[in-house]
Amino acid sequence: MRTRPLKVALLGCGVVGSEVARIMTTHADDLAQRIGAPVELAGVAVRRPSKVRDGIDPALVTTDATALVKRGDIDVVVEVIGGIEPARTLITTAFAHGASVVSANKALLAQDGAALHAAADEHGKDLYYEAAVAGAIPLIRPLRESLAGDKINRVMGIVNGTTNFILDKMDSTGAGYQEALDEATALGYAEADPTADVEAFDAAAKAAILAGIAFHTRVRLDDVYREGMTEVTAADFASAKNMGCTIKLLAICERAADGGSVTARVHPAMIPLTHPLASVRGAYNAVFVESDAAGQLMFYGPGAGGAPTASAVLGDLVAVCRNRLSGATGPGESAYAALPVSPMGDVVTRYHISLDVADKPGVLAQVATVFAEHGVSIDTVRQHGRQDGDGEASLVVVTHRASDASLSGTVEALRKLDTVRGVASIMRVEGE
Amino acid sequence: MRTRPLKVALLGCGVVGSEVARIMTTHADDLAQRIGAPVELAGVAVRRPSKVRDGIDPALVTTDATALVKRGDIDVVVEVIGGIEPARTLITTAFAHGASVVSANKALLAQDGAALHAAADEHGKDLYYEAAVAGAIPLIRPLRESLAGDKINRVMGIVNGTTNFILDKMDSTGAGYQEALDEATALGYAEADPTADVEAFDAAAKAAILAGIAFHTRVRLDDVYREGMTEVTAADFASAKNMGCTIKLLAICERAADGGSVTARVHPAMIPLTHPLASVRGAYNAVFVESDAAGQLMFYGPGAGGAPTASAVLGDLVAVCRNRLSGATGPGESAYAALPVSPMGDVVTRYHISLDVADKPGVLAQVATVFAEHGVSIDTVRQHGRQDGDGEASLVVVTHRASDASLSGTVEALRKLDTVRGVASIMRVEGE
Repeated sequence: MRTRPLKVALLGCGVVGSEVARIMTTHADDLAQRIGAPVELAGVAVRRPSKVRDGIDPALVTTDATALVKRGDIDVVVEVIGGIEPARTLITTAFAHGASVVSANKALLAQDGAALHAAADEHGKDLYYEAAVAGAIPLIRPLRESLAGDKINRVMGIVNGTTNFILDKMDSTGAGYQEALDEATALGYAEADPTADVEAFDAAAKAAILAGIAFHTRVRLDDVYREGMTEVTAADFASAKNMGCTIKLLAICERAADGGSVTARVHPAMIPLTHPLASVRGAYNAVFVESDAAGQLMFYGPGAGGAPTASAVLGDLVAVCRNRLSGATGPGESAYAALPVSPMGDVVTRYHISLDVADKPGVLAQVATVFAEHGVSIDTVRQHGRQDGDGEASLVVVTHRASDASLSGTVEALRKLDTVRGVASIMRVEGE
Repeated sequence: MRTRPLKVALLGCGVVGSEVARIMTTHADDLAQRIGAPVELAGVAVRRPSKVRDGIDPALVTTDATALVKRGDIDVVVEVIGGIEPARTLITTAFAHGASVVSANKALLAQDGAALHAAADEHGKDLYYEAAVAGAIPLIRPLRESLAGDKINRVMGIVNGTTNFILDKMDSTGAGYQEALDEATALGYAEADPTADVEAFDAAAKAAILAGIAFHTRVRLDDVYREGMTEVTAADFASAKNMGCTIKLLAICERAADGGSVTARVHPAMIPLTHPLASVRGAYNAVFVESDAAGQLMFYGPGAGGAPTASAVLGDLVAVCRNRLSGATGPGESAYAALPVSPMGDVVTRYHISLDVADKPGVLAQVATVFAEHGVSIDTVRQHGRQDGDGEASLVVVTHRASDASLSGTVEALRKLDTVRGVASIMRVEGE
């Protein structure tokens, strides 16, 4: 074993960074054995140096992250700051000064993955980011390496723990969205400003990364259709139960049936209770992968948290250090397929639509005509009066598979009918 | 991209081998892009050359496997023959003649993994075998690479599809073992001679491989405690249901609580219906991994079959080819921890014991005394007369956690009691 240590610079020392530093210290011997050389924490860049950090030598702490990545003797930079800047500039600077990079930064990878990979390639360095998607769950490496000889057709998963906690709570207790969100906040599962989670920005970034890897195609954040879960109601859960379903916020990356294009989207959807994703509880994540040869695979585990995310970071750190010792680099960006990314309108799935309609004869015929005119075939209709004497009834329509564009056209036309008082909810039905 | 192809020799062209050859042909362009060079099927060694093989150039087919691996121009040998010999000699010959090896051979890896890794190292070649455990499910790579910075404490899984099919059938239909086995055989899930599956030789080999990787310790096949599932009865399933459990054949690799030793075992066990492994149906496999930092992870998918196994083989083939192009090798054997492997007697778990006893006062007191004398603490006892007038009753004891040695001592002493007519079943209770 080489005795000269590999030097690691840690950018960020919050929940994840402090766990990375702790494990590097407490498991130093194991890491050295597994890498083939000791690893040494050579510097820790933070914003507030005054904060006490257990077990980290104060002499290593600096507020000058740029100087740290420019030192020239750093082998691997571990970036756990998050956000676009200064993380992006620090990472490209690190490559230029001879370091490989391990990052947990989903927002940055989703937005600028191609440019960062190009920078890594230019300097012959590694860029690894297992921790950017689904925390501790090995997912990037299985998709990129284990399934490298297979053709992936669909990646569908629960990739945001906060929203899964909220939806699970709504499902199990009948609570409304706000009540469930309040509990998630009180328990520390949701941040004070939960926008990134509940509006699905976080999940959309992960979908872009997963789609890119699964389909060997660049998928930008803008390519991902995004719909948050703030409008999911207790009534939607009741409808889902009627169908033998529950509701999950799903990230879905699909290859079109003809193989010529791909789509990526994030939205709440009904899935059958018999689907493995339906039983993913609390803040856990799970990702379902379908490929030509392997068939259906599922990966399950904690999707966030300091220690789980640190586990993923350290797995990458070991791989990058091993590559460094052997003078090789791991798999870089693979975007050779360059498939077009189709818009949401091209997505084909099933829909569950709740309409408030006038409670009089002929309404169902009118509604059914609109569906037919837009080429959307109806699977089932359930109609019932509200019995509150206001002359309204509700109509629940479940469609066969149709394109999102056809469904949108249908809904637009339905809204124009005098007899349709309102569209109470539209939800996609997946996993059947 | 390099234009000179990498040459692959395929040893064996049965269910798995023919799928490997098919995918290498139909997905040649994708494989070339992902590897960075084309791969070419340079030879296929088979036992019966007369058998028609769709899509394989007859000129490539040979019965002389030894000559094929000795050719000297082969980059990667894919071994899907199975069994110990001639596979072992062919693999070591391949290393000596400059090839890396991808194998799906669990029996050989479990028995001679250390020697094969040493041969690979001696010649600076790769030995990859993702397909040897749990078919298509990425498991070896996640354990060996993704979790390389973590400390794995337990690997517990369903790693044999045949026995899971049989047990699932018994659970869902109330069928006995023989009836369920007959159905598995009729459907092609069980072989004509099902011994390797039902007596858990197959699962034990996989447990040895998994324990070795998880604990960075050599675990020989002889180190694995093995108990088949031929004696599981419909009555056992009824007992399991009473406890809110089902029965699975589990491979369990554990680090002792003090971290100083490990155990590996395969046996039928009760697990709670709420445990993720309980809902693994049919011939599917799933492996639950617990580690210090990542927490609880699960990997799920098809554990056998030509195409799924081929997917795992081809993932390894891509990795090995990439390593070859970069002049590096992937992670080899990691056995530095060299922890002692403790015998089954040291395993600590809970037990469910059914006794046939004389239906008279004082029996429970006698039985409870025997448990107490052996230091096995009782959690619950259920006692009921058989009401068939033969003077016998049954006593179901569930223990707290105790060592297997203490439990064996208890059972031995119970058998000597006049009032105990027989020990109907002993089953471990896991996953709580």
